[in-house]
Amino acid sequence: MNSPASTCLAINGERLLQRIAQLAQIGAIDGGGVCRLALTDEDKAGRDQVVSWMRDLGMSVEIDQIGNIIGTRAGRLDVAPVMTGSHIDTVRTGGRYDGNLGVLAGLEVVASLNDADVQLDRPLQVVAFTNEEGARFAPDMMGSLVFQGGLSLQEALDTVGIDGSTVRENLERIGYAGSVPCGQPDVHAYMELHIEQGPVLEHESIDIGAVTGVQGICWLEFEVQGVSNHAGTTPMHLRHDAGVVAQQIGSFVRQLTERYGPPQLGTVGRCELFPNLVNVIPSKAVFTVDLRNVDKASLDQAEQEVLDFARQAAEREGVQIKHRHLARFDPVQFDERLISKVEQHAKDLGCSVKRMPSGAGHDAQMLARSCPTGMIFVPSVRGLSHNPAEFTHDKDLIAGCSILLSTLVELARE
Amino acid sequence: MNSPASTCLAINGERLLQRIAQLAQIGAIDGGGVCRLALTDEDKAGRDQVVSWMRDLGMSVEIDQIGNIIGTRAGRLDVAPVMTGSHIDTVRTGGRYDGNLGVLAGLEVVASLNDADVQLDRPLQVVAFTNEEGARFAPDMMGSLVFQGGLSLQEALDTVGIDGSTVRENLERIGYAGSVPCGQPDVHAYMELHIEQGPVLEHESIDIGAVTGVQGICWLEFEVQGVSNHAGTTPMHLRHDAGVVAQQIGSFVRQLTERYGPPQLGTVGRCELFPNLVNVIPSKAVFTVDLRNVDKASLDQAEQEVLDFARQAAEREGVQIKHRHLARFDPVQFDERLISKVEQHAKDLGCSVKRMPSGAGHDAQMLARSCPTGMIFVPSVRGLSHNPAEFTHDKDLIAGCSILLSTLVELARE
Repeated sequence: MNSPASTCLAINGERLLQRIAQLAQIGAIDGGGVCRLALTDEDKAGRDQVVSWMRDLGMSVEIDQIGNIIGTRAGRLDVAPVMTGSHIDTVRTGGRYDGNLGVLAGLEVVASLNDADVQLDRPLQVVAFTNEEGARFAPDMMGSLVFQGGLSLQEALDTVGIDGSTVRENLERIGYAGSVPCGQPDVHAYMELHIEQGPVLEHESIDIGAVTGVQGICWLEFEVQGVSNHAGTTPMHLRHDAGVVAQQIGSFVRQLTERYGPPQLGTVGRCELFPNLVNVIPSKAVFTVDLRNVDKASLDQAEQEVLDFARQAAEREGVQIKHRHLARFDPVQFDERLISKVEQHAKDLGCSVKRMPSGAGHDAQMLARSCPTGMIFVPSVRGLSHNPAEFTHDKDLIAGCSILLSTLVELARE
Repeated sequence: MNSPASTCLAINGERLLQRIAQLAQIGAIDGGGVCRLALTDEDKAGRDQVVSWMRDLGMSVEIDQIGNIIGTRAGRLDVAPVMTGSHIDTVRTGGRYDGNLGVLAGLEVVASLNDADVQLDRPLQVVAFTNEEGARFAPDMMGSLVFQGGLSLQEALDTVGIDGSTVRENLERIGYAGSVPCGQPDVHAYMELHIEQGPVLEHESIDIGAVTGVQGICWLEFEVQGVSNHAGTTPMHLRHDAGVVAQQIGSFVRQLTERYGPPQLGTVGRCELFPNLVNVIPSKAVFTVDLRNVDKASLDQAEQEVLDFARQAAEREGVQIKHRHLARFDPVQFDERLISKVEQHAKDLGCSVKRMPSGAGHDAQMLARSCPTGMIFVPSVRGLSHNPAEFTHDKDLIAGCSILLSTLVELARE
């Protein structure tokens, strides 16, 4: 039974690329991008297409209570399935690969198995999770979070989106309010293929990333309240300049990342000064600090250092400072056995491979709470994502899908 | 002839305060402030009031070609006049003291001289200069600049304001396109009374500032161009973060002011990041640096240090940086003899006094190019100005006006 898989079983790259191109037509925007916000009419059209492809492949299709689409290819045995997938919702100015690749690669794996007439011991499930992006409804990764039991179904359904309507209303409206219960997943293993969304693989000329986990995130928003005054008539020692405190904290964040070294990341992405005039000392500054690390202890320490420095800088300047968390996720570690499998299958295929954490969040990190989980990254040209210019070379898409196939087959035979 | 001045000659504080209150009714806005943008209908109404008061005081009134109102109290001799004054235009949300005090104190000096029937050797002129604020037409201090010959009349008249109309059109419209030529001032000495517009006098509990000059100004606008990328997937060493360069330069400016010590000032008043999102590395930052110093060499050096640091910081980060000057004025030194007179007359009145530079620009700095010039500062509560809450205590207004009287009388007898 093992020989057909290793000799004849191979994906059809052309078919994978065609499905990617076809799905990208739904909600297409200028520049080759896609706008398919979660639970909109465009999302419904995309879902209908995926369901139709699943049925064509002979899969049984179920919709769960949060709208996740679960296609199942039956196994020889009635045991916990091997699962793969991702999401097909996008941000407003999204690309065609983010999420979609993981779902369509799953379908290509099923199609290849059908072509080769390979029957596996375990069922193989391909899932399109609801609202991974969080661009219309917060939080992001909602479908996988509810699927795994990390968020109550009621809370998720009651979520009000940016346009004032709820997840429940929209699921019902587009006909994806399913009945399969959420929160008790029995999954043997979960694998997700995704574009890197960062520049590391391309920069280092590596074909495949064996993803070791998802880094933890700490998003802080600071508000500094100082006193507005004339920039020409107020001596330095009488100032309470909210802006300079923001700048000092921004510089400190950069110094901290240099001191910690990789994989510590730190970014001040947003900063606003008030009244924002050349000759007026800023009375108020609002800015964000985005800290990330794969190591929880380091992330915690970085956060504490930033908070300590911020308090001291504010005290020195005689201004008020307060902060709130916009987000806080601990790092997620993927399964060592699955990471090794990805490495091995990449090498078998002649691909260069490196272990790397994921900088962005993925549905896989929710699954990792319940079952052995792994991810495969393929390079993103110029590291672009959430951008119509998002691009991954065909050969990389095909290589990633091939490694997904080998890994899933191996897992489904356990 | 000297005895009446030193014994009976005194200002009428009540009358001064009443004129201030009366002029503040014209263009009054909520919170006790004034909106009398240059050459608007409100400015015309204010000018008419001032001219009417001048005539009531027996002064001859002339309007020059840039619209400056020059009231003259004749002297015994046909020699160069002693001049005082300021401006009555305001910013959009101005206070009632800025500028107005200098003009109305001049009128009060004339009224006091009339009351005491004191005749002086030199003519005494009270001037209300056109468009000191620059809030409607750039540059600021336009009337005194043209009066002194630092800007050609034609260029000034052709200036287009924020509403698209020219200085010429508006001068004609409000009837203040005068015929007295500009640019050849023959003035024996110029004295201006003004509110400090800063917190120093109040903070140090000093009654009077003997102004030593006006600090030089260097306004730089920087634009940093980096590369926008995902804050979670882009390693620190692959970033080209425009925002962090802005923050580093802002922190450097503060360090520089600490290293130089007073009177060096440095302010980042304006800063904008693009696209200004928590999880996106800023692709662009636009921000201003406001440097001021009374010492030209120090100011030049500070500017050079900021430009050098900015270039290095940009190079380190691999971003493009460019800058332009929004303004650049050398420091102005006032006349030592006049500074001493202000000190002496303040002490004679029992006032505490300190020598200090002006942080803001004033008409006096233009006059200083042509004749011995001095200024008297009175305290601004909480340092507020260009604000309806701008306030100076009555006793300080009256003390300032009394010192102006003594100084002008002394100068007019030279």
